[in-house]
Amino acid sequence: MKPTQEILDSILDDVRPLLGQGHVADYIPALECVPNHKLGMAVFTNQGEVIHAGDALEGFSIQSISKALSLTLAMGLYEPGELWNKVGKEPSGQAFNSLIQLEVEQGIPRNPFINAGAIVIADMLYSRLSAPRHRLLEFVRELSGNPHIVYDKTVAQSEMMHSDRNAAIAYLMRSFGNFDNEVLPVLNNYFHACALEMSCVELAKTFSYLANQGRSVITGKPVISAMQSKQMNALLATCGLYDGAGEFAYRVGMPGKSGVGGGIIAIVPGDMTIAVWSPELDKSGNSLAGTRALELLAERIGRSIF
Amino acid sequence: MKPTQEILDSILDDVRPLLGQGHVADYIPALECVPNHKLGMAVFTNQGEVIHAGDALEGFSIQSISKALSLTLAMGLYEPGELWNKVGKEPSGQAFNSLIQLEVEQGIPRNPFINAGAIVIADMLYSRLSAPRHRLLEFVRELSGNPHIVYDKTVAQSEMMHSDRNAAIAYLMRSFGNFDNEVLPVLNNYFHACALEMSCVELAKTFSYLANQGRSVITGKPVISAMQSKQMNALLATCGLYDGAGEFAYRVGMPGKSGVGGGIIAIVPGDMTIAVWSPELDKSGNSLAGTRALELLAERIGRSIF
Amino acid sequence: MKPTQEILDSILDDVRPLLGQGHVADYIPALECVPNHKLGMAVFTNQGEVIHAGDALEGFSIQSISKALSLTLAMGLYEPGELWNKVGKEPSGQAFNSLIQLEVEQGIPRNPFINAGAIVIADMLYSRLSAPRHRLLEFVRELSGNPHIVYDKTVAQSEMMHSDRNAAIAYLMRSFGNFDNEVLPVLNNYFHACALEMSCVELAKTFSYLANQGRSVITGKPVISAMQSKQMNALLATCGLYDGAGEFAYRVGMPGKSGVGGGIIAIVPGDMTIAVWSPELDKSGNSLAGTRALELLAERIGRSIF
Amino acid sequence: MKPTQEILDSILDDVRPLLGQGHVADYIPALECVPNHKLGMAVFTNQGEVIHAGDALEGFSIQSISKALSLTLAMGLYEPGELWNKVGKEPSGQAFNSLIQLEVEQGIPRNPFINAGAIVIADMLYSRLSAPRHRLLEFVRELSGNPHIVYDKTVAQSEMMHSDRNAAIAYLMRSFGNFDNEVLPVLNNYFHACALEMSCVELAKTFSYLANQGRSVITGKPVISAMQSKQMNALLATCGLYDGAGEFAYRVGMPGKSGVGGGIIAIVPGDMTIAVWSPELDKSGNSLAGTRALELLAERIGRSIF
Repeated sequence: MKPTQEILDSILDDVRPLLGQGHVADYIPALECVPNHKLGMAVFTNQGEVIHAGDALEGFSIQSISKALSLTLAMGLYEPGELWNKVGKEPSGQAFNSLIQLEVEQGIPRNPFINAGAIVIADMLYSRLSAPRHRLLEFVRELSGNPHIVYDKTVAQSEMMHSDRNAAIAYLMRSFGNFDNEVLPVLNNYFHACALEMSCVELAKTFSYLANQGRSVITGKPVISAMQSKQMNALLATCGLYDGAGEFAYRVGMPGKSGVGGGIIAIVPGDMTIAVWSPELDKSGNSLAGTRALELLAERIGRSIF
Repeated sequence: MKPTQEILDSILDDVRPLLGQGHVADYIPALECVPNHKLGMAVFTNQGEVIHAGDALEGFSIQSISKALSLTLAMGLYEPGELWNKVGKEPSGQAFNSLIQLEVEQGIPRNPFINAGAIVIADMLYSRLSAPRHRLLEFVRELSGNPHIVYDKTVAQSEMMHSDRNAAIAYLMRSFGNFDNEVLPVLNNYFHACALEMSCVELAKTFSYLANQGRSVITGKPVISAMQSKQMNALLATCGLYDGAGEFAYRVGMPGKSGVGGGIIAIVPGDMTIAVWSPELDKSGNSLAGTRALELLAERIGRSIF
Repeated sequence: MKPTQEILDSILDDVRPLLGQGHVADYIPALECVPNHKLGMAVFTNQGEVIHAGDALEGFSIQSISKALSLTLAMGLYEPGELWNKVGKEPSGQAFNSLIQLEVEQGIPRNPFINAGAIVIADMLYSRLSAPRHRLLEFVRELSGNPHIVYDKTVAQSEMMHSDRNAAIAYLMRSFGNFDNEVLPVLNNYFHACALEMSCVELAKTFSYLANQGRSVITGKPVISAMQSKQMNALLATCGLYDGAGEFAYRVGMPGKSGVGGGIIAIVPGDMTIAVWSPELDKSGNSLAGTRALELLAERIGRSIF
Repeated sequence: MKPTQEILDSILDDVRPLLGQGHVADYIPALECVPNHKLGMAVFTNQGEVIHAGDALEGFSIQSISKALSLTLAMGLYEPGELWNKVGKEPSGQAFNSLIQLEVEQGIPRNPFINAGAIVIADMLYSRLSAPRHRLLEFVRELSGNPHIVYDKTVAQSEMMHSDRNAAIAYLMRSFGNFDNEVLPVLNNYFHACALEMSCVELAKTFSYLANQGRSVITGKPVISAMQSKQMNALLATCGLYDGAGEFAYRVGMPGKSGVGGGIIAIVPGDMTIAVWSPELDKSGNSLAGTRALELLAERIGRSIF
């Protein structure tokens, strides 16, 4: 069955009772103050159709969803051999910001979607791009079709004020020779990427290339190759939801990427891209109502990769 | 494109140069003596067509592939709430037989496909079946269409002689209250399951229910529900290849389960089941040539879940 | 200053207010039911003088204090090279019954006073003694001067009923080749040693050899060499109090060994042996009031090794 | 027996064959180029007598021996409750620069002698002293009786160039709220302390207060209280030799502190202070020949704390 306005509306009605049962991320004030009742969902089909419900046009902090965008840029700048020498492809089995595994595995992060991995990717972009922040902004503006997307400077600065653990991660990788630039400017870029403010509709459009063999449905142009798109979806399916990837695959059955801002994007390869937003998180740090909404959508339209 | 005899033959030709580059499992003599040049592949389509090449009719020790069979049986005997309280659904990020995570996570194994998880499942089958070994044999004989499948007693006894680490795992879980029966008889059953001797063709037929919404293509009867089949595929995709699940998803892009005997089964939901066999393993403990053969098949027939 | 009856009496008065602030070990019923207000202290000088106060004549379960006795026996049966190949001499920095470090360090326990180490020692005694339990009993009967000391069978059986974690430890070591006999009989001996029932006075007399260059003050005969006595005291000082050895050295400043039954023995080399008993434990598993009593004694008689 | 010139000379002769069997610290060039055959030993008695042999008058980089000096200063500036809330008193059971335990234990280092602990102490000195580097220099100049002791700037700068892992440690502690100042200036002070250049004779004199109930034999003035001196010796005995404290206690039987420059100081409370220097290290990072020399001295003069 195709996703329809009615299906999306009924899903949001069904998950709304979950609001109040999770916890809004509170490690920085700029996220803590987001109203916890926000709830939005958008579907963008490979035919270019947009369906959305709830607060799907309102911008929010995409946070770790940006890790998939940064990896996409890195895939265009580095050969696979270069890239995958510096970061692995395996689920971590640990908290997204743990240093334990990183020390045991000698500074090579498990995958590009835990903090350490994303910081290595930020370091790699810093090495090869003259203006990485500007490039990322151009990239999402083009793919989303919205030339007005910006970084939320308050969020970025607030992250920078609470960056000690990420600095520890970066310095630890540098001690193992797996980080090449100065720590603070790289972290600044990393936090800016996390501070991108986008709506569900913009996110669904932006990631359309992952549902469309690497080619953006918005621009019609290839972003990455069909093979790379497959690979990215594989990484998202196994590593995209922190330490809740198995549960998400079990319940939703789509490659996805979540952020602590409460957003999740999910891909039905060959078919559509979906974005949800609800700020309250479950114990794995993924949007509680957002995950449930995706699970219901998978059931009602009968789509999953399994 | 459909898989054909020619495609399978050419794939085996292409991977044969890998023979000699991996290591045959040597922790028990019964596995160590398997000739390392064995190489077989079988495809079983949802239409009932069998295509096979190489040593695909020769039986080998399926080892951990049996974990997916035992979990299937457990899914039929326990409610999801009972089952998933005793074992998790997340990738482990550690060696398949490590006790470290098991102690940190208080005796609850990360997933049913690491040793600790499979041993819990064996304990659960022991609690609810009067003759678990007999039941499993019936099960694979029926699903494979071969009533002559047997346990390789030499392998089972050899495993039992080298069972100290698995006994440690079982006792540790029992100390946390997550293991209910005597350790040795449960381990004995667990090792018998690992010692099932089956061919690629038999494995591909046996697992056809995972490609066919829970219904065996051989018997036409439901083995598990369509929802459970989806869930099992999700677990296989995220946890089925030890600490190489991410790499396997990236390269092959199918849910799968490997064994240290060198076998791998892989699923294309809605389409077909595939089995390969080549005894030499890569550093993650998965068949080296077998993984490559699946990767080539995915490329040449253009099938993956991503 | 010399220890006197008055000093011991005043110390017990001073620590009595601590009763009620700790927790009696409750992992087996036989320990849980010991009255928590028991409090005893005994000093045995190298001149053969006994001073005691409170419940110092009442027998209690010596538990891990027995690890020092077993090690003493092993020192007499094995060359240092044999012994210290199978167990280390370093503090563990982890809980006394953890398997994590044991797996990382490939089955070699950190020291003879954590459970794993004591179980290896029990395995070594099993290999070289025809009747290890009988030998240990003879040993303590002779050194304490009391021929009626016995194992508390109820405690030993109760421990055996709750031995899963220790069985896991033994099997893990056996999987690494660092355990030679059947697991259950060795554990049975280990639990019997823990179940020795002795009083403070008997303990102080028994360990007099550690204060007297290896020679028992009771029998006048050498138990171990002067060098071995020094070495044993060094091990007790760095590893004798679980994960509270540093705190104990800082506050008390004597080599010591504690048990979860609430007993502690402490040594002033060249001078005296001390035993205390109070069943309530602190968070490190050492007797709360007992540790404080030793601290006060060290202050009031001006004795410590530092 | 008293230490004599003959005893020291014969000890150095006896350990000289060990030269060539260890490894000079090579993580910074300034240490790597120290000649590996250097060997010196000095004894300073509580009566003010100096005995020395070999290269005992030659300055070397004291490295982690400085951690005991910094802790001494901190003991004078902070109440015990303040101090021991920020750093523990237990052996770590892990490498001196590991982040694993530090993450598990939420940013509280195990003891003041592993890197993390010493960095917290450096942070505490930074908070309460206007010129910590100057103060430390005054301190060692006064206690050693040599007003010309200086920091080796080349060593300090070289350390600062290789400080990534220590920066990671500091940032991790700051993320847990257990580090109060800017990371780089604190590390700079920490590295300067490590870069103090002192001879064996100067070290033995400087630490005389630990053998003399807190009072310097050189100045006659109290440095810390008698109680604090006992406590410091207890900490040195259990935590002073990285992950080799148990072995050192077993073989030498004195509180001590080592540095990767190959120096070790050891204390016989009530009697004397000893310093040795030999740049080659054993696998625990302690001077190989230096440890053996202390072991021989303990045997030949019949002194140890056990």
